[in-house]
Amino acid sequence: AVEGLVLILLAAGGLPADEGMWLLNNPPDKLLQERYGFEPTPGWLEHLQKSCVRIGASGSLVSGDGLLLTNHHVGSDQLFKLSTAERDLLAEGFYARTRGEELKCPDLEVRVLWSIEDVTERINAAATPEMSPADAYTARRKAMTRVEQESKDATGLECEVVTLYHGARYHLYRYKSYKDVRLVMAPEKTAAFFGGDTDNFEYPRFDLDFCFFRVYEDGRPLHPEHYLRCSQAGAADGELAFVLGHPGRTRRLLTVEHLKFLRDVEVPTFLRYLWRREVQLATFCNRGPENARIGEDSFFSVQNSRKARTGVLAGLLDPELFRRKGEEERRLQAAPTSPGDSATQPADPWADIATAVKTEQEFHVRYQLVGRTFGSELYSIARDLVRLAEELPKASPDRLREYRDSELDSLYLQLYSPAPIYEALETNAVASGLSNLAETFGAGDPTAVTALGGLPPAERAEQLVRGCTLQDVETRKRLVKEGRPAIESSTDPMIQFARAMDPEARALRKRFEDEVEGVQRAAYARIGAARFAAYGESVYPDATGTLRLAFGPIKGYTEAGRTVPAFTTLEGMYDRWKERRGQPGFELPQRWVDLKSKLDLSVQLNFVLKADIIGGNSGSPVVNAKGEIVGLIFDGNLQSLIWDIAYDDVQGRALAVDIRAIIEALRKVYNAGALTDELVGD
Amino acid sequence: AVEGLVLILLAAGGLPADEGMWLLNNPPDKLLQERYGFEPTPGWLEHLQKSCVRIGASGSLVSGDGLLLTNHHVGSDQLFKLSTAERDLLAEGFYARTRGEELKCPDLEVRVLWSIEDVTERINAAATPEMSPADAYTARRKAMTRVEQESKDATGLECEVVTLYHGARYHLYRYKSYKDVRLVMAPEKTAAFFGGDTDNFEYPRFDLDFCFFRVYEDGRPLHPEHYLRCSQAGAADGELAFVLGHPGRTRRLLTVEHLKFLRDVEVPTFLRYLWRREVQLATFCNRGPENARIGEDSFFSVQNSRKARTGVLAGLLDPELFRRKGEEERRLQAAPTSPGDSATQPADPWADIATAVKTEQEFHVRYQLVGRTFGSELYSIARDLVRLAEELPKASPDRLREYRDSELDSLYLQLYSPAPIYEALETNAVASGLSNLAETFGAGDPTAVTALGGLPPAERAEQLVRGCTLQDVETRKRLVKEGRPAIESSTDPMIQFARAMDPEARALRKRFEDEVEGVQRAAYARIGAARFAAYGESVYPDATGTLRLAFGPIKGYTEAGRTVPAFTTLEGMYDRWKERRGQPGFELPQRWVDLKSKLDLSVQLNFVLKADIIGGNSGSPVVNAKGEIVGLIFDGNLQSLIWDIAYDDVQGRALAVDIRAIIEALRKVYNAGALTDELVGD
Repeated sequence: AVEGLVLILLAAGGLPADEGMWLLNNPPDKLLQERYGFEPTPGWLEHLQKSCVRIGASGSLVSGDGLLLTNHHVGSDQLFKLSTAERDLLAEGFYARTRGEELKCPDLEVRVLWSIEDVTERINAAATPEMSPADAYTARRKAMTRVEQESKDATGLECEVVTLYHGARYHLYRYKSYKDVRLVMAPEKTAAFFGGDTDNFEYPRFDLDFCFFRVYEDGRPLHPEHYLRCSQAGAADGELAFVLGHPGRTRRLLTVEHLKFLRDVEVPTFLRYLWRREVQLATFCNRGPENARIGEDSFFSVQNSRKARTGVLAGLLDPELFRRKGEEERRLQAAPTSPGDSATQPADPWADIATAVKTEQEFHVRYQLVGRTFGSELYSIARDLVRLAEELPKASPDRLREYRDSELDSLYLQLYSPAPIYEALETNAVASGLSNLAETFGAGDPTAVTALGGLPPAERAEQLVRGCTLQDVETRKRLVKEGRPAIESSTDPMIQFARAMDPEARALRKRFEDEVEGVQRAAYARIGAARFAAYGESVYPDATGTLRLAFGPIKGYTEAGRTVPAFTTLEGMYDRWKERRGQPGFELPQRWVDLKSKLDLSVQLNFVLKADIIGGNSGSPVVNAKGEIVGLIFDGNLQSLIWDIAYDDVQGRALAVDIRAIIEALRKVYNAGALTDELVGD
Repeated sequence: AVEGLVLILLAAGGLPADEGMWLLNNPPDKLLQERYGFEPTPGWLEHLQKSCVRIGASGSLVSGDGLLLTNHHVGSDQLFKLSTAERDLLAEGFYARTRGEELKCPDLEVRVLWSIEDVTERINAAATPEMSPADAYTARRKAMTRVEQESKDATGLECEVVTLYHGARYHLYRYKSYKDVRLVMAPEKTAAFFGGDTDNFEYPRFDLDFCFFRVYEDGRPLHPEHYLRCSQAGAADGELAFVLGHPGRTRRLLTVEHLKFLRDVEVPTFLRYLWRREVQLATFCNRGPENARIGEDSFFSVQNSRKARTGVLAGLLDPELFRRKGEEERRLQAAPTSPGDSATQPADPWADIATAVKTEQEFHVRYQLVGRTFGSELYSIARDLVRLAEELPKASPDRLREYRDSELDSLYLQLYSPAPIYEALETNAVASGLSNLAETFGAGDPTAVTALGGLPPAERAEQLVRGCTLQDVETRKRLVKEGRPAIESSTDPMIQFARAMDPEARALRKRFEDEVEGVQRAAYARIGAARFAAYGESVYPDATGTLRLAFGPIKGYTEAGRTVPAFTTLEGMYDRWKERRGQPGFELPQRWVDLKSKLDLSVQLNFVLKADIIGGNSGSPVVNAKGEIVGLIFDGNLQSLIWDIAYDDVQGRALAVDIRAIIEALRKVYNAGALTDELVGD
């Protein structure tokens, strides 16, 4: 039966050659050897694995002194937090000429993946056949927490159980964690994000989307066992390249009914939120230069999500996608049942998922709105404090997962961050969220009534933000320490607000976990098991925010009858600047204008490759067969946005900054000799 | 009983002194006399009435040679249509040094109100007691069409029956119509709309929001019997001023349940549409200078609506408004019933309205989306052609109202407009509308399926727009002439699309008219009658897009503890420019920068007054007691936006351009000597 399924699936064409986000402990050896004659050795893999860092998204260690290379747009959150009204690091860029000038990030943690262990049997043993899907889901999550805690206690490493193949496998990932990370160098945002929203996710492209941090340990630069060397020669057109990074989430096994939910509910709902917020933040930023500065980070993040989701929606609205997915689904449904323990598995997982998405549709908008914290820092802090007071007295496995013991260090790093919180932006975010409750559910909705407290949204937001005492980090620490009595007697209006909102937020989350996520996990585990039974670990699991290996040649494509070459150059950047000069998003920093004649304009700036990436891969090193860095993933093109759902390499491409442009810029524009020497190993 | 009601209402405070959009045939004589000692004579009123023009919004004749003054943002639609890729009149401005250089507008009609007649009894006679509200509503509309047609046949004037006091009165308005209107002068948009979206609807303000047209008759400049003279001295702080214009719609009698519908459904739904479209148009415009040029008119209109609706929503989300409206409502409900013919009137109009808004809620979003034409010119033309083919064979009173005989001349002016239609913008609008169908109702919705025709939105839009033959005006004329057979056999994809969409659009409209509008008209007529029985014509009716007289002193206000003075000056404009230089919306035309030293910077630029205005009043002359122009309404401040629902003069103000700034700009910046002489009558 299994054999037959494989044949059926392969007959349907199998995977495009370069598809796949592969596990480091199960690399696509055969595929690479057959297609490219390349054999990744265990040493090669371990070296890459331990040179990579998880930093929200992705990055890599690039010197023996803990130098870390990632995207500007990955580091920009810290650049924003390190800026003041007098010194805007996003606008001006930054370079620390000495170690002493490096700026300590307020709340940045990086992790290096140290080891992986298969714990599937232990996790599965926690769920028994007589449990409901929701109970089995809960039991497995508790088992995961226990496994993580045990391993942390034993090794001192940060531990996380990762659900792979939709529950067909559970792997325990152990990380070294570093919480002292300092800013070394960043170009101006106008250079890093040249072309702005207009060119974002498009190609040809001309972005210097990089920045450097340094990892410290015990107050001294980290001397890592593994770090990546730079290829000063760079890569050539057609060359095979590898991408090591942390793709956040793909959903390539979703059923057709689930995809319809994405197309008709989830993506449009999120886009509606983004359109609304983008306009509100644009008007906020336009009110003056300081507003523009404090609003820019949020504005960019909303714009970026909007453009990405617009691409996903366009992909979902292509009937061809549904035709293909429907065919795949029918083929899998027709395949003989795998010999798994059918007693604990749903009989018709497709029907279960259809039911679950129907259920989710009933409260999706409400869960998104009441379950979140309006993009407000203060509300988010207040809610963490309220929830910590309730969760900490419980045993770790019984808590909401983000408050389990193994997560607390990372949580406190965020919660006690000294990063500035801007009252004007907070008030805007809270007023927007409050108004959104009324707009969406009606101002007479009980939750909206509670939230608004009898005031118009703007006045209520002012009351909550102005009266809030949580700007002070010591107050936050005290409230965590004193726990529930302090929270219950607190007169802080934001704490009171978070307390008032929390019961419904928790109830919505519980409903989501029990009636949607739990059911879907069980059903996808069944579908995943069928697929796993056929392919075993010869296929890659959906992205999970953990380290993966992708690969593919550097290669251009054809669009609207025109050839789009793989590489762009510095000259192309100046041409684009001339063509669009003065338009929003197309400014260049003055030093780039002044130094043009000093530069080698033929230096490669950006390139495209077929490697399979998704959001979270930003900052991933692109390495050659020797394991040297040739570039830095910073984006995918518009045609790659649907890769969330289905990979396709006809036009879809990953975008990278060429390492040669980074070196040219460091040497000649940023006058960063010491940093360049450290990077190229001179 | 009637007496009692008046006393009850007056005891509640009555109207703020300067509230009211008064009928020209029923001016607030007593109020003006008591409060300001001013007595408008019939001659004064007739002179103002016949000097004013309806031009989409408002405007006035200001010379014996048919010179017409209105806002730049009222004329900007024509400026846009008269522009080309080589000559952007919005960016560059325009001045015709000779009559020969004046540019004929492609589709601009202006109307001058010539006479008014009360036809209440004739219209009411058409509805009999045994009719349902829907049937009575239809019967009255047919009667209106008959009355209009008869009057047009008798007088040759354009005739329109206006429903006043929610049906307590019907007045027949007769207009002189002019369809040859030419552009004389316009400043650059950056001067007219200085401060952009940021300062829009705010104060202090610094906008030269004016432009000049000339009305022609039989190929020669019109020599109107009445036109307004300019006051070169301008108006003083505290001076009483009058506003003559065409407020579009107010809804000041809405019941509390109806207001909740506005707050919870109508305004949020429209805002969601606007946010979405604003972001889409912003990204469209940012793709390049020509995109920016062809998209600007739509973009401005969406931004402007968004800012206005944001203000309305903020007002509706103030619980104080509902408290006040609720009190008023309870007072009116408790008042003794008026002696009207209760047999034909609903027993509980408040309950009827509550039911009607509940019904509307069921299909409001669908009606807004399927009932409209996506903001696409070609789709709009196609639908007119499809509907004309169906409507023209019917008798005039039986047609959809916009196709009745008395409207056809105006309709054809629009339909056969030679104004350019831009394929790129059309494709964007159609793709947006198609995607919106799928986003809102799901891509599996039968209407969405039909609309998309098996293609992704962008591809389908290209198919519809590229294949469309309606760019050619002669093709449109031919299709109207050949009627239904030509439409039914047309292979034009946009015609076929409009035909496919029309049945549902018509069904939604019919449902709206029968179950919502008809019921509400009957119910509001009942409420209006109660109010009318109490006050008679001593109160003003809600705005109806027809000529009204408003008044109030020129007067600043206090905001956040600071005094906002009534007047701004040219100097203030330069200060604001300096403060925000280089920010979006704050560019000044180069000649304004160069000529600063030549100008009298103390000249008054904008001022605020308490006159009761709303959208549609843009371009209204502000006149002094002598009937001379002292300014030009161009906006209301943020606090006035809720005037749609309720007037309040604590901070709410109308905004006007000072005539002195217009004269200073014409003479010294635009070198428009002849025009200035014509304007000031030298």
